[in-house]
Amino acid sequence: MKAAIFVEPGRIELGDKPVPTVGALDALVRVTTTTICGTDVHILKGEYPVARGLTIGHEPVGVIEQLGAEVKGFAEGQRVIAGAITPSGWSNACLCGFCSQDGAGTPHGWRSMGGWRFGNTIDGCQAEYVLVPDAMANLAAVPDGLTDEQVLMCPDIMSTGFSGAERAGIKIGDVVAVFAQGPIGLCATAGARLSGASVVIGVDRLASRLDMASRMGADHVIDASKVDPVDEIMRLTGGRGVDAAIEALGTQSTFEAALRVLRPGGTLSSLGVYSSDLTIPMSAFAAGLGDHQIVTTLCPGGKERMRRLMSVVAAGRVDVAALVTHRFKLDDIEAAYELFSHQRDGVLKVAVTP
Amino acid sequence: MKAAIFVEPGRIELGDKPVPTVGALDALVRVTTTTICGTDVHILKGEYPVARGLTIGHEPVGVIEQLGAEVKGFAEGQRVIAGAITPSGWSNACLCGFCSQDGAGTPHGWRSMGGWRFGNTIDGCQAEYVLVPDAMANLAAVPDGLTDEQVLMCPDIMSTGFSGAERAGIKIGDVVAVFAQGPIGLCATAGARLSGASVVIGVDRLASRLDMASRMGADHVIDASKVDPVDEIMRLTGGRGVDAAIEALGTQSTFEAALRVLRPGGTLSSLGVYSSDLTIPMSAFAAGLGDHQIVTTLCPGGKERMRRLMSVVAAGRVDVAALVTHRFKLDDIEAAYELFSHQRDGVLKVAVTP
Amino acid sequence: MKAAIFVEPGRIELGDKPVPTVGALDALVRVTTTTICGTDVHILKGEYPVARGLTIGHEPVGVIEQLGAEVKGFAEGQRVIAGAITPSGWSNACLCGFCSQDGAGTPHGWRSMGGWRFGNTIDGCQAEYVLVPDAMANLAAVPDGLTDEQVLMCPDIMSTGFSGAERAGIKIGDVVAVFAQGPIGLCATAGARLSGASVVIGVDRLASRLDMASRMGADHVIDASKVDPVDEIMRLTGGRGVDAAIEALGTQSTFEAALRVLRPGGTLSSLGVYSSDLTIPMSAFAAGLGDHQIVTTLCPGGKERMRRLMSVVAAGRVDVAALVTHRFKLDDIEAAYELFSHQRDGVLKVAVTP
Amino acid sequence: MKAAIFVEPGRIELGDKPVPTVGALDALVRVTTTTICGTDVHILKGEYPVARGLTIGHEPVGVIEQLGAEVKGFAEGQRVIAGAITPSGWSNACLCGFCSQDGAGTPHGWRSMGGWRFGNTIDGCQAEYVLVPDAMANLAAVPDGLTDEQVLMCPDIMSTGFSGAERAGIKIGDVVAVFAQGPIGLCATAGARLSGASVVIGVDRLASRLDMASRMGADHVIDASKVDPVDEIMRLTGGRGVDAAIEALGTQSTFEAALRVLRPGGTLSSLGVYSSDLTIPMSAFAAGLGDHQIVTTLCPGGKERMRRLMSVVAAGRVDVAALVTHRFKLDDIEAAYELFSHQRDGVLKVAVTP
Repeated sequence: MKAAIFVEPGRIELGDKPVPTVGALDALVRVTTTTICGTDVHILKGEYPVARGLTIGHEPVGVIEQLGAEVKGFAEGQRVIAGAITPSGWSNACLCGFCSQDGAGTPHGWRSMGGWRFGNTIDGCQAEYVLVPDAMANLAAVPDGLTDEQVLMCPDIMSTGFSGAERAGIKIGDVVAVFAQGPIGLCATAGARLSGASVVIGVDRLASRLDMASRMGADHVIDASKVDPVDEIMRLTGGRGVDAAIEALGTQSTFEAALRVLRPGGTLSSLGVYSSDLTIPMSAFAAGLGDHQIVTTLCPGGKERMRRLMSVVAAGRVDVAALVTHRFKLDDIEAAYELFSHQRDGVLKVAVTP
Repeated sequence: MKAAIFVEPGRIELGDKPVPTVGALDALVRVTTTTICGTDVHILKGEYPVARGLTIGHEPVGVIEQLGAEVKGFAEGQRVIAGAITPSGWSNACLCGFCSQDGAGTPHGWRSMGGWRFGNTIDGCQAEYVLVPDAMANLAAVPDGLTDEQVLMCPDIMSTGFSGAERAGIKIGDVVAVFAQGPIGLCATAGARLSGASVVIGVDRLASRLDMASRMGADHVIDASKVDPVDEIMRLTGGRGVDAAIEALGTQSTFEAALRVLRPGGTLSSLGVYSSDLTIPMSAFAAGLGDHQIVTTLCPGGKERMRRLMSVVAAGRVDVAALVTHRFKLDDIEAAYELFSHQRDGVLKVAVTP
Repeated sequence: MKAAIFVEPGRIELGDKPVPTVGALDALVRVTTTTICGTDVHILKGEYPVARGLTIGHEPVGVIEQLGAEVKGFAEGQRVIAGAITPSGWSNACLCGFCSQDGAGTPHGWRSMGGWRFGNTIDGCQAEYVLVPDAMANLAAVPDGLTDEQVLMCPDIMSTGFSGAERAGIKIGDVVAVFAQGPIGLCATAGARLSGASVVIGVDRLASRLDMASRMGADHVIDASKVDPVDEIMRLTGGRGVDAAIEALGTQSTFEAALRVLRPGGTLSSLGVYSSDLTIPMSAFAAGLGDHQIVTTLCPGGKERMRRLMSVVAAGRVDVAALVTHRFKLDDIEAAYELFSHQRDGVLKVAVTP
Repeated sequence: MKAAIFVEPGRIELGDKPVPTVGALDALVRVTTTTICGTDVHILKGEYPVARGLTIGHEPVGVIEQLGAEVKGFAEGQRVIAGAITPSGWSNACLCGFCSQDGAGTPHGWRSMGGWRFGNTIDGCQAEYVLVPDAMANLAAVPDGLTDEQVLMCPDIMSTGFSGAERAGIKIGDVVAVFAQGPIGLCATAGARLSGASVVIGVDRLASRLDMASRMGADHVIDASKVDPVDEIMRLTGGRGVDAAIEALGTQSTFEAALRVLRPGGTLSSLGVYSSDLTIPMSAFAAGLGDHQIVTTLCPGGKERMRRLMSVVAAGRVDVAALVTHRFKLDDIEAAYELFSHQRDGVLKVAVTP
């Protein structure tokens, strides 16, 4: 089968691999649509190391081709998705609610980011077929009437973005700022709106992303290339600051700005992937006495999470399919990487179809 | 092998069964110690219906005899316990934290009390061997240095009792009343104390149980056969009432008393198994405007829960082994039922050894 | 000044009273708009006892006429509202977050429903002027651009209705049923939608209220005069039940139906005012082992609550002004009671202007 | 009256001031015992700026001398304490549970650390008399039978230390590490133990403080002057790390160590007062993907908090009076500062009596 394979830093190429053999707890899924994530670009660039020869990709939409001998509750031919994070369900971490830090196979049951397996520790889904591990915990049936592109954001982008709002503990009437309006930040914006925030403020440096932010639910947008977002947010809130700030880029400047706009007692919900140490400036942290919270989240996965997110899409609460700006055949995935990694042509997300 | 089998209402008898065959995800455990639960007495009396021929019992301590082909992370010969509740880990209910309501095998993934399988829907552990389903989620290694009797309460009594305190959301400085000081109520008393309550009030009608309540952490004990516990608790709290009341018997009178002693905004944490409809008297419920909460809990299970509880025992925080008042061989289990079901001779819990 | 006075059961009449004298911590507010609540009808009928001669009403919109000597932070002439519940801010109950159970003046600081003072223990606001106690905790400035009718629901109806959703702990993707679509139920419906529920089901017996339910955010409406709502909800949810059910009427049948549609582990959030004892049927309660929660709430008050709710209105998230179906002068308040208490002419809420 | 007055950086001297005049909402308290806090030493050194001429001290135990005209519920001659943090009760921050960030008097009701007034923005309690503002929210009657020294830790040290455990969300069975065992760290250790942690690990560099840590509830102590505490904690936990780590010193090295020992999904509860920017090393932060939480807390205050803490002392749950190692008369407070600020003679806390 065809698969997008990490060859070496700088090279992800379409190659050929055997169709995987199905273990007792696995499901083989024929991929009908997948996409490329910012994390895949980190892999491409060698910034996040994975084994050479690994198939990349962690956002699968497809059809069950074959089920392992012990897998019950699903049928071959069923349309499904699986999350970017594929929890075992039975590790100690999973059993107390931390599926993303799944330590299946370790002595104590915890592993940092251990739930992220596709395109990280096992072959991913930028391929004709993908093997879904612990299938009973991870296969989620796609509701009738939803297209592949409507559910394509559920495995990662929507799950991650929404978790930013969820972990911030947003309550009805909150004021929320979201720093950066890439695909995850846009979903965080939508998630904050859906959670009852009465004022959602989207920040970015690209006009096209700010337009999309308005469409996803931002009440105010701030172009950080033109004004200082901290000043502007403090002005908008009458000097009070925001109840929650969501960081969705992974840089010192957005992290720091998010901290600076928090009211005392506010929550910084961090989604970004940071590539260097962070500094917490005391001028923004009340010497540690501000009752602040900083929470980080790795994309929640598992079939129940997928079911919930698809129910939100099915209810028409948010149009995440709008994030798909470009479409490619799997055969052309190298071109898709070229476009996406350079953020050319206003790209938000690409749909890739084998 | 020998097993205590439900024959018909009124009869649980020692019988003979084949040693179970081990499936891919199962573990066969040789039982070294088990016990009888109040729920088993309900089964005996026919008040809780189970299939005739079922092996009873859901509190196993033992040694792994054989592991299924797909089970990793454990070794034959290891000393283990498994919870009364054996979650699959992969149902929708499990994946959002409700392991006791596990609906593995249902279309939507939820089943009321579905996590309770031992001695309910599958053969239990009052036998020489027991088959533990979904073994990777359910086997918990016993720490070195702990005896069978020290961990015998973990599968059910301690897990249930402690959950009464946990679900009540007890905070440091709370005043907590626990209605009924049977084994579960005694563990609820210990759990309330361990959670930081500054005043724990134990209520029962038997002096021996009240003595044990003091030993498990009660600051005050009330003999409900001599004084009205509602009056006495309101007196002790200066008319304020308690922050949380734990019901651990399953009767209208204890439920109602628990409600009557709550301060406004207080929580009734209910552990009892009720056999008839409950009445909420409006005089105790502020017409529904008292900001009260009533929470119910089915014993939490799974290996992480078992690990935590055993760590509490290992740390010497509570002496749950003290609840074992009588000991029987499996051969004499009918006598054990006789004693236990009639609460003779001050029995709290029996240890049964095959 | 003119005031609607409780004379005796069956009689609330417009009378004359002196304008109140302003204490050090009070504010005198000239009422510009107020309304009648279902609770006022209970008072009228003698079902909820208050002192004869009391001015009724607890939903004030007005202008600050005079401030007490110790009141800072407000100015005479400012447009304000105050909540139906007027917490002191300094009782023990308030200081741990239970403002509605404010026990200011009691030895221990808690009193059941003690935060409800207007038209209950002190003169209310169906009058030309109302004295707001503990004004610094209770006056909330109306944002520019909002009309009286836009904020008229904030003091009680919206605060109560939204609290039903908030206390139910609704998460993104939940399925929620709301039993009864009177003003509070309609706001609960809106609150559930705003909290991220992907399916909101409104139940009532009046077509006009079901129409309004759709407008306030219900995805499905069920006419309980035509079909059994329990059956219908179980059908809609594929047998799974709802994550949360909100009771907004205060009857055994709606309470019981709410319990029957809960999935295991679900939450019944009760808003209704019950006039007789409630029964919890065991068939709906899993013998107490279903991990269910029943939570009750009295309308949250205080200026911060009012500020939040007005921010939701200002942001256009919900059109609560649409609930005002009829308008009366204070002089005609007896006619307003006549209409409202008999639910004539499709009335939802009346606006009363002195 | 005599008072310890901040003269200039480096000088806190005993001086003379008029007894304060009592406003309508105030209480004048004759101080019977007070103490010196590490924060006072920061003030002394000029590291935390306050107005010259201010009376220092924020931990009062005393007797009500005079009540303001509007103060109800207390009596002159009553023994009381007040918290280091004296919330108004009526600011927006207070009304949503953030009393320490009280913004009474600001347009929006929030001010960073605004609840800390004694010895910061108003005269403190290292004096013969102290004026307690918003007395109804802040005076807490001392239970009969408790000595001044038994309740002397409640206003700050115990409230702060316990909050470290509370905000960490400790559950029964957690493993918790507490970095630094000064007075606040010792109370955090006690608070973690009281909250149900099954393993509490105390870290410090002084043998005397480690001895006290064991007495306050630590199961293990680590002398950071002899071994690397991160290595040692990872060894003790079998490589898993701790569920929660409490930072109680305010330095980069303890903050960083606390982060490094967290299991994925763990919580760092920070109590220290930091004097320079903090660095979050990515090697300890899983690139922001570890589901970690960092929470900070300023000492909770108000009379309900004081009541709760005194109830814990009254119940004998923790012997905080043991922290008083030295005693001085107010006349000798300069000597007390000399000893305390140099941590001479194994001092933990001093008791100062006017």
